[in-house]
Amino acid sequence: MLSTMQDVPLTVTRILHHGMTIHGKSQITTWTGGPEPHRRSFAEAGTRATRLANALRDELGVTGDDRVATLMWNNAEHVEAYLAIPSMGAVLHTLNLRLPAEQLIWIVNHAADRVILVNGSLLPLLAPLLPHLPTVEHVVVSGPGDRSVLDDAAPRVHDYEELIAGRPDTFDWPELDERQAAAMCYTSGTTGDPKGVVYSHRSIYLHSMQVNMSESMGLTDRDTTLVVVPQFHVNAWGLPHSTFMSGVNMLMPDRFLQPAPLAEMIEKERPTHAAAVPTIWQGLLAEVTANPRDISSMANVTIGGAACPPSLMEAYDKLGVRLCHAWGMTETSPLGTMAFPPAGLSDEEEWPYRITQGRFPAGVEARLIGPGGEVLPWDGESAGELEVRGPWIAGAYYGGSGSEPLRPEDKFSADGWLKTGDVGVISPDGYLTLTDRAKDVIKSGGEWISSVELENALMGHPDVAEAAVVAVPDDRWGERPLATVVLKEGATIGYEALRAFLAESGIARWQLPERWAVIPAVPKTSVGKFDKKVIRKQYAAGELDVTQL
Amino acid sequence: MLSTMQDVPLTVTRILHHGMTIHGKSQITTWTGGPEPHRRSFAEAGTRATRLANALRDELGVTGDDRVATLMWNNAEHVEAYLAIPSMGAVLHTLNLRLPAEQLIWIVNHAADRVILVNGSLLPLLAPLLPHLPTVEHVVVSGPGDRSVLDDAAPRVHDYEELIAGRPDTFDWPELDERQAAAMCYTSGTTGDPKGVVYSHRSIYLHSMQVNMSESMGLTDRDTTLVVVPQFHVNAWGLPHSTFMSGVNMLMPDRFLQPAPLAEMIEKERPTHAAAVPTIWQGLLAEVTANPRDISSMANVTIGGAACPPSLMEAYDKLGVRLCHAWGMTETSPLGTMAFPPAGLSDEEEWPYRITQGRFPAGVEARLIGPGGEVLPWDGESAGELEVRGPWIAGAYYGGSGSEPLRPEDKFSADGWLKTGDVGVISPDGYLTLTDRAKDVIKSGGEWISSVELENALMGHPDVAEAAVVAVPDDRWGERPLATVVLKEGATIGYEALRAFLAESGIARWQLPERWAVIPAVPKTSVGKFDKKVIRKQYAAGELDVTQL
Repeated sequence: MLSTMQDVPLTVTRILHHGMTIHGKSQITTWTGGPEPHRRSFAEAGTRATRLANALRDELGVTGDDRVATLMWNNAEHVEAYLAIPSMGAVLHTLNLRLPAEQLIWIVNHAADRVILVNGSLLPLLAPLLPHLPTVEHVVVSGPGDRSVLDDAAPRVHDYEELIAGRPDTFDWPELDERQAAAMCYTSGTTGDPKGVVYSHRSIYLHSMQVNMSESMGLTDRDTTLVVVPQFHVNAWGLPHSTFMSGVNMLMPDRFLQPAPLAEMIEKERPTHAAAVPTIWQGLLAEVTANPRDISSMANVTIGGAACPPSLMEAYDKLGVRLCHAWGMTETSPLGTMAFPPAGLSDEEEWPYRITQGRFPAGVEARLIGPGGEVLPWDGESAGELEVRGPWIAGAYYGGSGSEPLRPEDKFSADGWLKTGDVGVISPDGYLTLTDRAKDVIKSGGEWISSVELENALMGHPDVAEAAVVAVPDDRWGERPLATVVLKEGATIGYEALRAFLAESGIARWQLPERWAVIPAVPKTSVGKFDKKVIRKQYAAGELDVTQL
Repeated sequence: MLSTMQDVPLTVTRILHHGMTIHGKSQITTWTGGPEPHRRSFAEAGTRATRLANALRDELGVTGDDRVATLMWNNAEHVEAYLAIPSMGAVLHTLNLRLPAEQLIWIVNHAADRVILVNGSLLPLLAPLLPHLPTVEHVVVSGPGDRSVLDDAAPRVHDYEELIAGRPDTFDWPELDERQAAAMCYTSGTTGDPKGVVYSHRSIYLHSMQVNMSESMGLTDRDTTLVVVPQFHVNAWGLPHSTFMSGVNMLMPDRFLQPAPLAEMIEKERPTHAAAVPTIWQGLLAEVTANPRDISSMANVTIGGAACPPSLMEAYDKLGVRLCHAWGMTETSPLGTMAFPPAGLSDEEEWPYRITQGRFPAGVEARLIGPGGEVLPWDGESAGELEVRGPWIAGAYYGGSGSEPLRPEDKFSADGWLKTGDVGVISPDGYLTLTDRAKDVIKSGGEWISSVELENALMGHPDVAEAAVVAVPDDRWGERPLATVVLKEGATIGYEALRAFLAESGIARWQLPERWAVIPAVPKTSVGKFDKKVIRKQYAAGELDVTQL
């Protein structure tokens, strides 16, 4: 039996129209570094987005599902691109300006971008890449910056403001299929080529609704959100679209991401919410401790991208700023969980919930897969790899123009769920606690041992400076943990004593490592994470001085 | 270019699972009239819904898209039916217990309901209908009531609790197409047969998301909503599904809808929100004025179904209870508008927004169609018929089993929009003010004259008790207004004076009626509304003493 409901697609075009009319008075405020920020209403931004669509089509020849890339900071023009490009049927491709040059080149060529919108301040980054980007026909420059670095032969260079000036305020927006591509973002994993995630109009629309729902961020047109998380980083966690949908005012820092200007814009513009990774909040805390500023308007902060130390949350609590954990990935749009505690608890009772990754919103289904491939219960104890399913979760990667999507087995289950690569437990009331990365977990006799748990316990010993635990092959158990420790200067503690210390710390007997090695330092990746690949290679090559207890 | 997102349907099943796990501790509290209400957690209600699905399939043979009807008050069991029936792939058909018997019979037969779930207290209503309901094979009785009124020959009678007892706590829920029928509700217009609106899983899921969004109701698991609007009335405005999705606690009055028990349950259970038609709030105000109760917990109230007198809003403001207008229809699921004022206004500045019907949420597109079929601007002045479009708006009516859907031209535009039958204006910032019903508006020389505006102006004169204005044929203008007035006892004012009074009240010159008649009383429908059909017929038959000025 069919319903009698209208068949209306969920599109970014609808977000554009709704935001610029019903919420036309809401504002995008962009920091300029000068005495006054730049302010633009949603009505104006929507009109300018419409002009941009006309310019892209009529002047630059953008058509069909052409990819239009952005290499931009968070600002009003970048929001305009977020709205115009998908609405006209093209595909917004956000470029991560922090990537190495060779990765950026690979990504632009793989996506076959025809146009790049770029902030003037980023031209020194873009200029040397252009000779390697044969698909790019047009570069559109917005904002201040020395444009002389561009060779104006090929591709053609345009000024954003000149390009959109005088264009019509209306556009014959196409009727889109909601499953059509709207935007894309490449993950920059440490191994293999970057992988392209292609968001649909449907996924962006539904993700925006969920972000605006009461069980998620639930901001209103009374709120202003400080969007520190970059627009090139999973669509700024979906905020430009979700806020435009609900009339939430945006405060955009542009390139002023240092602690001092962030503190200044918070004190002056009084956002009620903000979103950024822990590093930003560490820096801001140091700044406002050294040079006090009133940041208390910012009552709620969404923090994600990496684990947040509880001490940081406590420090902000004292400033009247509540940090709320969120977990997600490029493949999850990114809203996967948010750590709002259940209702009716005291501050003390809320704490154990706040330090989890949080609970799943209505649109995200989750399951834990155990070492034997079995689905584990939500009992707060059974650890497994997290798999997720939902309308804004990737089920494949972009294979390149004309190619089939990629569905690597280590990333997607046979029944289509995303394998997150994260290992954790889920409580009976649905709160996720991540304990390890799947590639680092030790698979011992059909059970999993968390490397992170062992490392944290070891680093709790006063003689231990650092510790990294990796899986090594074992004839009997398949894998067993190898504990590598860096001792503090002058420390002489033995392995038996460290093993006993682990047992006292509550590590189960069968999880205690038998293999131990002292190393001078834990190898690190370029971003400072433990590089366990190196330790595993050193062990395989017999380069470590291993003692077996 | 296709996205790489998973293709996951939006279903009531997902609402069921999410609510009973992530929000498993939230509660449905049902008033019993006894010293203690009945309390049931979402986890328990979800489990019982699962048992109900098993019972309906295994014991009653419900299969495919069978229609399962409910003739019930607002209570936990009715919520269980809301979740179980669509999730198993069947169609929930809510029956309006206020309808005349012959309409109920017509509706049940048209939908071909196989099962009716009924509250025991409603058996006296159902019993006499059963002989006329040949498709109904099973009656399932829940709650107290004299069951002896049922002839237990045909159909078979079951007790709800006995039926679900001991059934499995799991169900192999089917993978559903989100466009599949989930629920149906018949409109009870004053003319013609009732018309069935069939909601899809998609429409219910998206409507629930929108209700939970910050620009709409945006309630959280910290809230409790008092659901007075009946579950047989446009799915209780979508609340049972939307609250289950977000963990909002429900307070259900069951059959205790009188002002005194409502006041008692508000004082004792302290809901933070409520939803009902103006009549309910009129009654409650009289009650708490006569017998004071603390109802201030109920800070936000959604009021719809009929226009709310500003004086009622002002009276509740003084009690700390804010009434918020909403507009919708059975055909709109029903969320069409909500009258939250824009941000940043004083109480005084908010008032003109609060007395409108409100603004459209992201999922509802609106346009005004003028007398010549043209789309009118949102200028706050151009009056036209409101047409709406969106994923939870009807594009047809149910034609009956095996029949094509019905798309009457007076209800749906050629391009698929719903013609609401309401005439109004929309302000530049998207606030809707309804001024008349399309069938009552006077179409004079290509312009529209609001009958309601003329009536309100006339009834502002101290000598006028009642006034009804209808369109009558006019050779030159097509239609012109006929003003029929009921004078107060002893009043002798003449037509010229009334016409001058209208002009002074701000009615445009070309809108002033030329035809006038004094009548003893305005004819009324069975629910007390002006019955303008009767006046038009009396005029056509020459039964009115009309003076032409």
